[in-house]
Formats: sequence, structure tokens, C-alpha cells
Amino acid sequence: MSVTIDVLAEKLMHARQASRLVAQLSKKAKDSVLAAVADALETEAEYLIAENRKDVANATQAGIDAATIDRLTLSAIVLAGIAGDVRKVASLEDPVGEVTEMRTVESGITVGRIQVPFGVVGAIYESRPNVTVDIACLCFKSGNAVVLRGGSEAIYSNIALARVIHDAGVSAGAPEHWVQLIEDTDRALVHRLLQAKGEIDLVIPRGGAGLINFVVENATVPVIETGAGVCHTYVDADADLEKAHRIVVNAKTRRHTICNALDTLLVHEAVASRFLPAVFPDLAAAGVEIHGCPRTQDILGESPRVLPAIDDDWGQEFLSLTLAVKVIADFDTAMEHLHTYTSGHSEAIVTQDYSVGQRFMREVDAAAVYWNASTQFTDGAQFGLGAEVGISTQKLHARGPMALQEMTTYKWIVYGDGAIRPL
Amino acid sequence: MSVTIDVLAEKLMHARQASRLVAQLSKKAKDSVLAAVADALETEAEYLIAENRKDVANATQAGIDAATIDRLTLSAIVLAGIAGDVRKVASLEDPVGEVTEMRTVESGITVGRIQVPFGVVGAIYESRPNVTVDIACLCFKSGNAVVLRGGSEAIYSNIALARVIHDAGVSAGAPEHWVQLIEDTDRALVHRLLQAKGEIDLVIPRGGAGLINFVVENATVPVIETGAGVCHTYVDADADLEKAHRIVVNAKTRRHTICNALDTLLVHEAVASRFLPAVFPDLAAAGVEIHGCPRTQDILGESPRVLPAIDDDWGQEFLSLTLAVKVIADFDTAMEHLHTYTSGHSEAIVTQDYSVGQRFMREVDAAAVYWNASTQFTDGAQFGLGAEVGISTQKLHARGPMALQEMTTYKWIVYGDGAIRPL
Repeated sequence: MSVTIDVLAEKLMHARQASRLVAQLSKKAKDSVLAAVADALETEAEYLIAENRKDVANATQAGIDAATIDRLTLSAIVLAGIAGDVRKVASLEDPVGEVTEMRTVESGITVGRIQVPFGVVGAIYESRPNVTVDIACLCFKSGNAVVLRGGSEAIYSNIALARVIHDAGVSAGAPEHWVQLIEDTDRALVHRLLQAKGEIDLVIPRGGAGLINFVVENATVPVIETGAGVCHTYVDADADLEKAHRIVVNAKTRRHTICNALDTLLVHEAVASRFLPAVFPDLAAAGVEIHGCPRTQDILGESPRVLPAIDDDWGQEFLSLTLAVKVIADFDTAMEHLHTYTSGHSEAIVTQDYSVGQRFMREVDAAAVYWNASTQFTDGAQFGLGAEVGISTQKLHARGPMALQEMTTYKWIVYGDGAIRPL
Repeated sequence: MSVTIDVLAEKLMHARQASRLVAQLSKKAKDSVLAAVADALETEAEYLIAENRKDVANATQAGIDAATIDRLTLSAIVLAGIAGDVRKVASLEDPVGEVTEMRTVESGITVGRIQVPFGVVGAIYESRPNVTVDIACLCFKSGNAVVLRGGSEAIYSNIALARVIHDAGVSAGAPEHWVQLIEDTDRALVHRLLQAKGEIDLVIPRGGAGLINFVVENATVPVIETGAGVCHTYVDADADLEKAHRIVVNAKTRRHTICNALDTLLVHEAVASRFLPAVFPDLAAAGVEIHGCPRTQDILGESPRVLPAIDDDWGQEFLSLTLAVKVIADFDTAMEHLHTYTSGHSEAIVTQDYSVGQRFMREVDAAAVYWNASTQFTDGAQFGLGAEVGISTQKLHARGPMALQEMTTYKWIVYGDGAIRPL
């Protein structure tokens, strides 16, 4: 094991050296590299699909569920889609080099801030092999060198993808170690990566709650947490119930396995007996199972799709077709529930009342707060960012959808002409 | 001990409740509270000084050095200075509520970002009791509730200061728990505070390397590291030696116990034999002791103030009148040395050569990079920020001097009119 740890130390040293070169590349140079990477994903499709088949075969043999295998599988169409995403990243503005402020202060020095890359970024992720390409290209475009650690279930695909994009990038002028994959699947390496203070500037985990908690609990390097979301939608007494209907169905059923999907519906008692029976058939038709409070059960009556809610349902991220529903007495009770159970991801209110809506937008502490819209919009592309590294659920540095800008930091630049600080 | 841990849990719960109220206060309301706090520091001077004498007496008995006791001591003049700093904070712009972007995107939703407080901030610090007031007021102005944990050596002073500012603040309209001090000096509480994920949004340590490392290694809550700086100044072949002289003497001797003081001087060999003998007498007169490389020793000759440098001198933060000096062959060697030994705090070049200076400014990865100026300028007030919470040495969120703006985060606000995300 100490041998593989040494290999990691070497990778990190190479990443540091590469980061100094990547940081200095022009937009044009970076975009040429990305164009070459995109092309290679298409020209090398046959090789990539053949390697991917090994992972798919292993997953099938291990009895993995069909949905997971579907996400794991690469086809010519999937690869063309990934290549398209890379070309999209190439078309975006360069986040590096913008001077965001500059002023000459009383002492005569001129002081400013300039956007610069972090340096070396580590990405730790699971299953979907497209993350290998996505994260590598977003890191590169933002001037960072990247060290990747994917899941063992996609190891053949990840090795093949990393080789193809690495080689294409280097041929087009990227430094030798602009992207490196940790091929060894020993978990000790993840732990070592998370403790590599000074060698790595930022770690981004992408995956399930288990992975993210492991990273947060073991990291001494800076981390941006991504992922888990317990999302609420509150249908107010003054909601337009037709809008509420549309929003609730979309927030729960458009996709139910993603972090911005609706988990708990709160309904004001003044509208519950009209709203719940109206929306229930559409939810039921989509396969939704309600875990309702006693009043919800009373209103919806006997149905195999309506079960009594238990305490654990509140504050639960279901990632399934389960929906917790609670009828509440007033806005303050709704806020109380939110304060107690929010995970700070995406929260929505449906109301036509100006003052109530304004209070919700001001007082709810979450990465994204919605008024009369579906929480499923929480996404980099939907927010107009052009790309997404992940959705941050922390408050430090980046919150909500993270794009290229959030993959940079800044430094202070100070110009004098022999300036010294007085006593 | 479990009793005191319960007290901490209660404090954090109260802080969370208070944070929701502080976050919604107007600038005017916050500034009235700060004005009352400033006044109370002066009207309660007698009580504060009496309590402070207990700490000073204990420190004297414990044989603490005079400089530390000096920093610990409160007098009417010191308190008036602290009150003045509070009034300064009141005069600054409110960092909360600014909408930094807002646009209507293709899907029809309107998406923006608004600056909001973190929520509950924890501060862990040592010795200087003025930090109790500084941090509390900066957190309050930026809309956060704060939980303070000072050092045991200033416990009487901290309790008295926290009481005075708390009471004055509440009388002027602040919520009951806007500031809370952990009065128990048991270290287990610090550990518990650092693990209070969800209860605390940000921890800022202020103190020596031991404290900061303890915090970074034990925290699962987000932390902003502050403090340690290994600062270099590189005197280039094309330096104006008169400017270099002024800058080096200032960077080392203006104050030598602070993080932005010069630690290692790198001198290009083309100017070393002229520069070093010229600057040495002024350094020696200020009490500086040189740890020089062999060439430095050759140039400066025999002197009780010139000792041979050892390996550990490079990359050392001295916080004393020791200065490591190395003669180097060229710019690339200087950059090599910097890449190896920088702590990423403040780094300077002295040169008249445009291209060399530009390369230095671009390529050096530090919170503050200087061209022809003293590193002692790294400071919130000197950079025109009006206040300083600390100097961040990390890249996430805040880098270099942190002021009110850096004590806030943002949230996304999304407005629709029944908007749903298409498939």
C-alpha cells in the first residue's frame, strides 16, 4: 500500500507542476485543447465502448439494478452528447484573469483583486463515467490541474476516458499532467487525498450521501459539499391553485431521483381540502405514494397510495416517488417546519400574496429560494451558468449550482513604487 | 462535562434563533446597536478595567512575558480605541441585501443572487481581549449571530466585555442572543464546537499556529484559516536598490511579530554584493539577526549578527528579528524557491523590469502579491476595506484580508409565475 501512496504523492507533485502551466494558458489555447478532447471522444468511440462493456458486464454479473447500469453505459450517442458538453465548455467565457476591483488607496499603493485558478483540484465521484470528462474539462477551462478518483464500478470506462482525453489534450498543447486518474481503487488512497493539505487546493465530491459524508468527515483539505437536498414546497392560503398543481407535479415527478426533487409538500389548511384532492390523481398516476399527516389522510380518504407519515418522513430526502404531505395552520407554522427540516438546498412557496412571498424569499435560508416555480430548476444550465460542476450545499465560497466562476479564487495584487507602511 | 456540553447546545440553539432576527435587521437598526455598544465600552470602563486586572494579575503571577501582558491589558485609552473601532464598523456599508445579479433566462424564470449572512459564526481566539468586541461587532454588522470562545488567560476580561456589549446591544434593540460567550474554558467545548455541523455555519480561529492547526484538524464545520505567513521579498537584478533598501527594512522591522513581516530575503547575485552591505547596517541597528546562505556570509563577512542559515530557516515563519537571506542566480531560481517555501500569504518583488515584474505578479500563488512595496501592507484597513476580521490563508471563499463582505454568503432567488421545468 505504501507503494500506491507514493504513486499518489507523485501524481500530486505532477499536478502541482502542471497547475502552474495550465494557470497561464490563454483562453484560445485552452479552447483548442477542449476541441481536441471533444473530437477524440467521437473518433475513439469504438475503444471507449469496448472498455465500457467490461464495466457493464461486471455490473450485470453483480446484479446491479437496470437504472444504474443504464447510467453506466456508454454508446456512440452518449459519447456524442459528452463531446457536445465539452464543446459547450469551450464556448464559455474564461473565468481566469478578470480584475474585479482596483483602487489607489491613501498610502499611495494601488490594490486590486484578480480571479485566479485554485491550482490542484481533486474530484471524487461514483458510477457515471461522464463525470470523468465533465470535471476534467471544467477544471481545465478554469485553469486548474485535476486529479480524478472515480468509482470501482466504472474503472475500465474511467481509465479509457482519462487516457483518451489526456492524450488528445496533450497533443493539442496541454501540459503532460493536466488530468490524472487514480487507477488504484484502494480506499486508503481517498483518505490520503483528503489529507493532502498543501498538495491539493480543493476537493469536490460527487455522489451519494455516504460518499459526501465520508469526504466531509475525513478531509483536512478544503471541500465543497454537493448533493443532498430535502426540498419543500409550501402552498399558501393565497396560492393560485392551478399554478400550485402544475408546480407540485413537476417538482415531484419530472425526475424523482435528483437532489432538487420535491420531498415534503406543506399545504395551508384554508386550501388543503380543495388542493389535495385535485392534485392527488396526477401524482398517483405518476406513481407517487403519499406519506400524509392525519389531516392529509382525512382529506384524501382511503387509498393504497396514501400511508400515514411517520416522524422520520419529515426532513427525509426520498430520491424516490414518496412524497410527505402536511397540512399546516398558517405561514409561521410552515416557516417553523422549514427551519427545522430544511437541508438548505431548494425551497419554494406558491402564493399570490406579495407580503407573504417577500417574507419567504427573505427569511428562508437555502441555496435557492423559489416563488411560484418548481424546485427542479436548481441546475447550472437552467440558471444560465452554461455548465455545472455540482450543486453546493454549503455556504462557504459557492452556494447552489457551481460553474466555472466558482472553480476560481482570487488574489490581491499590490503595486507600489518603493512604498513602505508607516508605523 | 456533559452538563457543559448541554449548555453549549443550548447556546447554539439560541444563536440560531437570534441569527434569523439579526439577518433581517436594517442597516439603521444595526448601526444604533453598535453605537450603544461603543458608548457602553466607555461608560463601563471602570468595571471592565477592574475585571481585566484579575487576568493581568494571574498572568503576572504565572510569569508571562511583558509583551503578552501588554497586549492583555485594558486601560481607558485602550477601551476608547476599541470603542472607536466599533464606531468605524457602524459607519461602513451594510454588506447584506445587495442583489449582485438578476436575469430572466430562456425558460422564463427570473434568477438572481443576493448577499445574505452566514447565520451562526463561531470565533475561537487567544489572549487579546479586544477580539471579543471586534469579532462580535463585525459579525453583527454582517447580520450574523456569534458564539465566542476566548482564551483562559483573558477569561475575566472576556466575560466582562461580553456582558457589557451584550447588554448595551439588547437595550438598543439587538435580539437577546446576538452575542454569546462560552465562559467554560474546558477544551472539550472547542472540540464540540468544531463538530457542530448544522448548528454553526462558519468558524474563524484567530491566534497562533497551534490553535489554527487544532481547529483545521478537528473541524467538520466550515473554517476560514487565518494567520501564518512565510513572507519573501525578492530583490531582482534590475531592482532600484534604494527602493529595495527601504522596502526590506520596512517589511522586516516595522513590526516583526506579525504574519506579514518579512521572513526570507532573496537577492539576485548581480546586485547582492552592492545591496547586502548597504542594507545590513540598518537591519543590524534594528536588532535583526541574519541567517545567511554561504554567499551572503561571504559578502557580509564576520559579524555576530550573521549566522549560517540551516535548512529549517527556509520556509520558516520567524515572528522575530531573524531574517533568512539567500543569494540566488536568477529569476527562475527565485521562483523555484518561492514555489517550494511559500505559505501563500504575502510575497514581493522589487524590480524596475516590466516583464520580470509582470511574470512575478502572474505566477506567484499567494493571497497578496506585491511589486515594489512592503508586504507589511497586507491588512484590511490598508487595503481600503475599513475593517478586518482576519487574514485568510486559504483559497476557499476569502483570501487575504477579510472584511464585512467576506462575512456574508449569497443565496439564489428565483421568481416564476407557475414555471415548471420541461423534461
